Amino acid sequence: MAAYLDYQSSKPVDPRVIDAMVPYLTTSFGNPSSLHTTGEEAREALEESRETIAGFINADAKDIIFTSGATEANNLALIGFALRNKDKGNHIVTTETEHISIHNIAKYLAKAGFTVTKIPVDEFGKVSVDDLAGSITDETILVSVGYASNEIGTVQAIAEIGETCREKEIAFHSDAVAAGGLLPMDVERDNLSLVSLSSNDIYGPKGLGVLYRKKGVKLIPQVIGGGQEFGLRSGTENIAGIVGMAEAVRIMRQEMAGEVERFKSIRDQLIENILGKIPRSYLNGHPTERLPNNAHFRFDGVEGESLLLTLNARGVMGSTGSACSSKTLEPSHTLLSLGLTHEQAHGSLELTCGRFNKQGDVDTVLEVLPGILERLRKLSPLYDGD
Amino acid sequence: MAAYLDYQSSKPVDPRVIDAMVPYLTTSFGNPSSLHTTGEEAREALEESRETIAGFINADAKDIIFTSGATEANNLALIGFALRNKDKGNHIVTTETEHISIHNIAKYLAKAGFTVTKIPVDEFGKVSVDDLAGSITDETILVSVGYASNEIGTVQAIAEIGETCREKEIAFHSDAVAAGGLLPMDVERDNLSLVSLSSNDIYGPKGLGVLYRKKGVKLIPQVIGGGQEFGLRSGTENIAGIVGMAEAVRIMRQEMAGEVERFKSIRDQLIENILGKIPRSYLNGHPTERLPNNAHFRFDGVEGESLLLTLNARGVMGSTGSACSSKTLEPSHTLLSLGLTHEQAHGSLELTCGRFNKQGDVDTVLEVLPGILERLRKLSPLYDGD
Repeated sequence: MAAYLDYQSSKPVDPRVIDAMVPYLTTSFGNPSSLHTTGEEAREALEESRETIAGFINADAKDIIFTSGATEANNLALIGFALRNKDKGNHIVTTETEHISIHNIAKYLAKAGFTVTKIPVDEFGKVSVDDLAGSITDETILVSVGYASNEIGTVQAIAEIGETCREKEIAFHSDAVAAGGLLPMDVERDNLSLVSLSSNDIYGPKGLGVLYRKKGVKLIPQVIGGGQEFGLRSGTENIAGIVGMAEAVRIMRQEMAGEVERFKSIRDQLIENILGKIPRSYLNGHPTERLPNNAHFRFDGVEGESLLLTLNARGVMGSTGSACSSKTLEPSHTLLSLGLTHEQAHGSLELTCGRFNKQGDVDTVLEVLPGILERLRKLSPLYDGD
Repeated sequence: MAAYLDYQSSKPVDPRVIDAMVPYLTTSFGNPSSLHTTGEEAREALEESRETIAGFINADAKDIIFTSGATEANNLALIGFALRNKDKGNHIVTTETEHISIHNIAKYLAKAGFTVTKIPVDEFGKVSVDDLAGSITDETILVSVGYASNEIGTVQAIAEIGETCREKEIAFHSDAVAAGGLLPMDVERDNLSLVSLSSNDIYGPKGLGVLYRKKGVKLIPQVIGGGQEFGLRSGTENIAGIVGMAEAVRIMRQEMAGEVERFKSIRDQLIENILGKIPRSYLNGHPTERLPNNAHFRFDGVEGESLLLTLNARGVMGSTGSACSSKTLEPSHTLLSLGLTHEQAHGSLELTCGRFNKQGDVDTVLEVLPGILERLRKLSPLYDGD
């Protein structure tokens, strides 16, 4: 078995989640709007799942809107909020290290007449809360800061940013996908108005996400139709997927604490051994305030794509950064925002562990990586020796 | 076992489809943008599935855009097309019997400055191709006509409407959800520019649909992000769902012809027996040009909701019409467009059969329905005798 260390890009669905989903595919498959028994079963499952998922982030069930995934949740949060509240101001604050969907939505809103400020990050990928507070003007209606980076794993000071937004009475959105199931979340503690979550990031099925929308926060729907999800997201509900996400939450509640300790141990073994054994290797992201499962490296004189393909041939699956833009040749905007050069950014390797990793996976990485790097560096015109 | 005759509202997923999906949930679960083996497996599955689904409607694979369902496909088709092509004209033609999502999208476009003409239908729910052709002006950019009604089952003259659109060089969209797996489709024959399809309507999983978009037809994306689906629909691809929809298509190709004959037999037994045995009962929709699985009745002096609930208590699950608006008290816009009064529209019952119905289900309906109607009519102040 190959060592899969790319949990940030995609996760397997937990077999217990599949077991929970199957009855809603085969027997209780009704449309929750239907006035009969299978419709009623679907309706009950929908509302029970909504409760379960709400509880996971200390929210009310009626503030949970099911979407087709985190990207759609980000669209509804930012575009839906900005267009609905444009009479209150036209300024949006976000950061330089957001997921590509946030950046592309921000571009869209800039074309639609909004002003978007992207707060820079320090060399570890942290946003300064003071910088953020200083960027807020009378026109600011929304602050959007990712809970943690999906690439370098740096965790932001969400509660402090939430406090700033509370004082200034500005709505606060967080794309919390990368932190799902890794950091405990609490929308009250963090004063969050809007939160995007993904089902797959907690070992639920793909094609499903959630937007938490605090009571009173007004949005314009982005998918128009039969008026499902409190009129905010139309389309027949994906009940089996929703039940799967709720089951993923139930499992996470029981196992998260122990799991996170195990991830930290794997992460720290990777970081210590790789930085210790491989010359001119560096950690990207924050040394301590980082996701428990994220180890993100750069290696001088190595090209990330060749490294990935060679690692894959030796049974290790990793990432150069965000899978959402892996197929482009552009270096990651997150890595550039740390102040890295294009060459440095291209020499990156992200290893993220998850529920089904074993100690053997760590051993495999530590066994094959040094030799591969040595060989690639020998072939590289960019590398001038240790 | 209860008799489920509400296949139009929701379908179970075929167990063979679930079997095809499981490996993409548990082992080949990679992100198709990832540069490693499980990513590659996902990427191959995505493109193979795209080919399979394209073949089902005689389309090219690169014209298939995966969405989260038919409602989202309708949004991308109509809003995406109208906003992208508004320099060519501001007039859109549709009909009075479209799915609620089309009507609500049309309302949205009307607010955005477009003029929408809704062509009326005759007493059987058919659109006149001459009326439609006559409504086209120099400003018309798009015609949207559902392949068949999801409520009364009436099938429209799609090839003729396509011919009209070809002559006038106007884009032609069809919401083909209700006809999926029931009528053979061919985007070339019908000159379709845009077609919305749903996975669940061919016994695939919910939360997945397709927009066919003919080469050269320009759209503005409605979900912004990482640029998946040719830049037209962002978000990590739901590979297991997509593989499931492709498997549903493979099964459909082998079984559709035989299945449709079986549905017609069930439909015709229901229609003949119910109209024959129950006084003051009528068929809604076209007597012959109707979906092979659709029997849609109205009964004088009966209230549809009470009828449904009583039927359900006796083991028969049906619908009053569109599940998408079952929870509202408004009578169906489709039934009103036939010229029915509110009372007539409220006394409706839709029975739609599907893959897992047995002869026993028909027998159950015919056994319990006459008695229930008799009892309800006795209680009804609206009914004045046979």
